[in-house]
Amino acid sequence: MKKVNVGIIGLGTIGSGVYEALLDNAELIRQRSNVSIIVKGVCDKNKKVLKTISSRKDLIKTSNAADLINDSEIDVIVELIGGIERAKHIITAALNNGKHVVTANKALLSECWREIFPLAEKNNLFIKFEASVCGAIPIIRTLQECFVGNKIERIYGILNGTTNFILTEMKEKGYSFRKALKIAQEKGIAEKKPELDISGKDSAQKLVILSLIGFGQDISLSDVYVEGITEIEPQDIRNASLWGYSIKLLAIAKDRPDGLELRVHPTLLKSSNLLSDVRGEDNAVFVRGDLVGDSLLFGKGAGKTPTASSVIGDIAEIAQQISFRGKHIVTYNYNYIPEKKKISRIEELSFSFYLRFSVIDKPGVLAGISSILAENNISIANVFQNERKEGKAVPVLVLTHKAKEGDMRKAITRINKLSYVTDKTVAIRIES
Amino acid sequence: MKKVNVGIIGLGTIGSGVYEALLDNAELIRQRSNVSIIVKGVCDKNKKVLKTISSRKDLIKTSNAADLINDSEIDVIVELIGGIERAKHIITAALNNGKHVVTANKALLSECWREIFPLAEKNNLFIKFEASVCGAIPIIRTLQECFVGNKIERIYGILNGTTNFILTEMKEKGYSFRKALKIAQEKGIAEKKPELDISGKDSAQKLVILSLIGFGQDISLSDVYVEGITEIEPQDIRNASLWGYSIKLLAIAKDRPDGLELRVHPTLLKSSNLLSDVRGEDNAVFVRGDLVGDSLLFGKGAGKTPTASSVIGDIAEIAQQISFRGKHIVTYNYNYIPEKKKISRIEELSFSFYLRFSVIDKPGVLAGISSILAENNISIANVFQNERKEGKAVPVLVLTHKAKEGDMRKAITRINKLSYVTDKTVAIRIES
Repeated sequence: MKKVNVGIIGLGTIGSGVYEALLDNAELIRQRSNVSIIVKGVCDKNKKVLKTISSRKDLIKTSNAADLINDSEIDVIVELIGGIERAKHIITAALNNGKHVVTANKALLSECWREIFPLAEKNNLFIKFEASVCGAIPIIRTLQECFVGNKIERIYGILNGTTNFILTEMKEKGYSFRKALKIAQEKGIAEKKPELDISGKDSAQKLVILSLIGFGQDISLSDVYVEGITEIEPQDIRNASLWGYSIKLLAIAKDRPDGLELRVHPTLLKSSNLLSDVRGEDNAVFVRGDLVGDSLLFGKGAGKTPTASSVIGDIAEIAQQISFRGKHIVTYNYNYIPEKKKISRIEELSFSFYLRFSVIDKPGVLAGISSILAENNISIANVFQNERKEGKAVPVLVLTHKAKEGDMRKAITRINKLSYVTDKTVAIRIES
Repeated sequence: MKKVNVGIIGLGTIGSGVYEALLDNAELIRQRSNVSIIVKGVCDKNKKVLKTISSRKDLIKTSNAADLINDSEIDVIVELIGGIERAKHIITAALNNGKHVVTANKALLSECWREIFPLAEKNNLFIKFEASVCGAIPIIRTLQECFVGNKIERIYGILNGTTNFILTEMKEKGYSFRKALKIAQEKGIAEKKPELDISGKDSAQKLVILSLIGFGQDISLSDVYVEGITEIEPQDIRNASLWGYSIKLLAIAKDRPDGLELRVHPTLLKSSNLLSDVRGEDNAVFVRGDLVGDSLLFGKGAGKTPTASSVIGDIAEIAQQISFRGKHIVTYNYNYIPEKKKISRIEELSFSFYLRFSVIDKPGVLAGISSILAENNISIANVFQNERKEGKAVPVLVLTHKAKEGDMRKAITRINKLSYVTDKTVAIRIES
């Protein structure tokens, strides 16, 4: 089994998430990718944080990034300290030292794109950054690989979870912007200094990255028109609702014949638009390409494990590429079986059911049906009979609590044989 | 520039879509991936179809697949004939002949998984198949690469566009199943022999592929419980609505402690679930992983260009891998600029607006405001004043038709200076 050594710089929420998930799911990742990913070292300027990392004898713990960047055995440097100056120094040093780089740093990428990628190219190294835009959402790979054949026409979406949480609270609870912001801060969703999020700048940074990939233009942050959500009042949200709209902070990039449109601002969206249903901290991005039409990716835009998931996807891809380069084809292991599982038979599973009985409308019918249901351990949540035609066939509708499929089948077989049942019972499972 | 030669076998809807899109977007794909993808040959058993292909002198046109499989210059065989036996023969022959394979063949993959991947592995070749599940939706790469670090807990979604179209027609127009099916057939959405779709088997094949990747189990089609949509009546859809549910044909795979659940059947879904908003032919898949939480991918599940998009994504990745293997790192071209575009200034763009004016409630106010709007070429779609307090400040709400941002700014500057305007005007753009 090939081994790839990784050094993680920055052990905040995401960094510790990456470290822990690489340990917890190590075997699964090994089985799928045929590579063993080893965290050789971790770095944080705060020595207290280093002490909290579970001790493995051979793990390098340091508060000096150079200890990892200069370690000849480390193949991949994972930069998770954020900010621009120090992060740029680390990434540049890593690339100059022959290390591949994984980063989640949107500020850096949106400002230094045309400095760091040429350096990586010159040194024949990877920089991967799926986690820099919308946490767990695989939008970078989707644009770069899956949609590579498309002329991208527009990219737009909810790229910032903090502002979407605030707008959701304002809508659903009628809170003022200030109050919703305070709640977001108390929950750790907004920073103490929330300007980057609420001003729309965070969304703009992400939009720059997506546009650089999708449109292939030489654009920068100053090309984006940015307006935040601080002026929105609860009455605006209510008024919008009356007219069938939600208010969302959208980041929008459109490639039009007369130019590129790049903007971030609060937006009224028809309630029928899927984006209007994106609540709380969730993120979602629409991409329209000339081939794919409209596609939407939805998921967690931030948070410890969702962001770690994307970082690990990048590390694993680099690990596969450098392990097999020139020897084998890099591929998924199509025959991994982590642990043999039995396949459950449908009869063993439990569901709530929608049932439609076709019965003669006469006294005692419901009693007869419900006693058969009860004898088969099926309890009724709701009964509804919307037609009355004494002596004639009518539908009777029932919603049940969770019941075993096997029990339900037995009950229906018996019910279908009742003299006053005129047609086969319709049963549809409910998914919660 | 590296060149990679491709042979396309099967020139039906998708095959011709791939051929055309590779021509139309050739330059863009070259710029992004640093590889030139050349269609060296096309094959279709129907010679009439071959004649419709635009003639390029050096293009091989044949009705014998072996002509492409045995061509020493072809690197990648694209199998798009569908079905199992002949397709399997083509893929096997291609792999034995040192050709990489791209396919959209879900029937074949769901039945012959453990025959063809070992053969590809033995020969150190790729088989890629993003287009086999949900057309344009990048679900295969997402599971294999982006979410590689996740223990996948469940995969569920609307994997078949035909049945979703039928259920949407039944819901929105009250049609019977038979009538909705007929309309789907007239529109070319359902086949003349629609059994594969309406029985749920097509969804089951796709679920098998996703489960093989996500869970890594030795499962097959017979492990999936399958129930189609033929028994659903319009009244069931109406009844479900009354209780706040939609009826969708879902494919569901869950990894539970006591076993794997694999099932396809009509399902009641709460209207708040994003899947309940997926209309017509669209597809959507939820994936829940231990790190990412819930993620949704939505898009076109079938059709000429959406499916071609995924096929081309696969071809391009193979092309990059084999061109640079052992020499360079395989990467996106981060500095491509297809054609320099100007960035539009926000003032030049047009939007519909939501406007909230804070004004003293007295006669003539609306006339004053609307005349300033009119002078700036802004026309009003809707006015709403929900409070009346004669002589006091009240909000007046206006929705406008499309107007230039620059005009709007001028109008608001003037309006904000009016004596009866008590506070800054709030303006929010509407996105349609």
